[in-house]
Amino acid sequence: MLREGEICRSNYFVEKGCLRLYFINEKGSEQIIQFALENWWLSDYVSFNNASPAQFYIQAVEDSVIIELTRNHQDKILDEIPAMEKYFRKILQISYAANQNRFKFLYGFSKEENYQHFTSLFPEFVQRIPQYMLASYLGFTPEYLSELRKKLSQ
Amino acid sequence: MLREGEICRSNYFVEKGCLRLYFINEKGSEQIIQFALENWWLSDYVSFNNASPAQFYIQAVEDSVIIELTRNHQDKILDEIPAMEKYFRKILQISYAANQNRFKFLYGFSKEENYQHFTSLFPEFVQRIPQYMLASYLGFTPEYLSELRKKLSQ
Repeated sequence: MLREGEICRSNYFVEKGCLRLYFINEKGSEQIIQFALENWWLSDYVSFNNASPAQFYIQAVEDSVIIELTRNHQDKILDEIPAMEKYFRKILQISYAANQNRFKFLYGFSKEENYQHFTSLFPEFVQRIPQYMLASYLGFTPEYLSELRKKLSQ
Repeated sequence: MLREGEICRSNYFVEKGCLRLYFINEKGSEQIIQFALENWWLSDYVSFNNASPAQFYIQAVEDSVIIELTRNHQDKILDEIPAMEKYFRKILQISYAANQNRFKFLYGFSKEENYQHFTSLFPEFVQRIPQYMLASYLGFTPEYLSELRKKLSQ
């Protein structure tokens, strides 16, 4: 839905399915930054805000139903319907809070603790996505994730 | 201004000076997650949103002038003045975009690249704050930061 270097002109709402936001790192591997599940919004917000070239790719992880809200439409809706400002402000405030939590875990905890935290928060999601994508999101190699799962299941 | 375990009942605006948001990690060290400079807002948003115990400390880094907006006041202002919804939605959308960038750097780049990226974005700030705080924010030991600065100045 979006490639690095394009302008991200839309905010995407997941009606059904799952999106991922990722970039290609210097080693040529896909590094996943975010997933978006049902009822969540996803965009490359720097590109969306500034109409600058996107730094990320956005792609569906599985068959999905997505509502695309273009920047122009979003601006119009926000101007015409004040309740939508409140809606997006609340969504962003919750997302921003989740980011503070995620930074805490990235900085303060071991890889194993990060994995256990994530699986305790999203047990069904961990079963649902391909394991190499979960590994990428957690900053692991697929081999490390596989070893960790074996170790924890013993 | 806030200690871990307290309820964060306010959103703080930096009129002058600088705040930091940090937690104490398992080794007993302060791990800084965020700084807030002039014209920026800072809060423990999980605690602020849910009235749950704070996970972070918030403290002034230098003599500062701070405007404290309590949750009750913010809710009132947002209900009475729709333009404030737009203001906070925009602020949060910009902050969220900055977080996506930061995740990209945390996942995709080396410690040295992270340091160079941060100093290129905020050259004055890097001079202004105590170096052990900069090290903490970047996830370095103070010794590593000192060595890196020496190496890069050669």
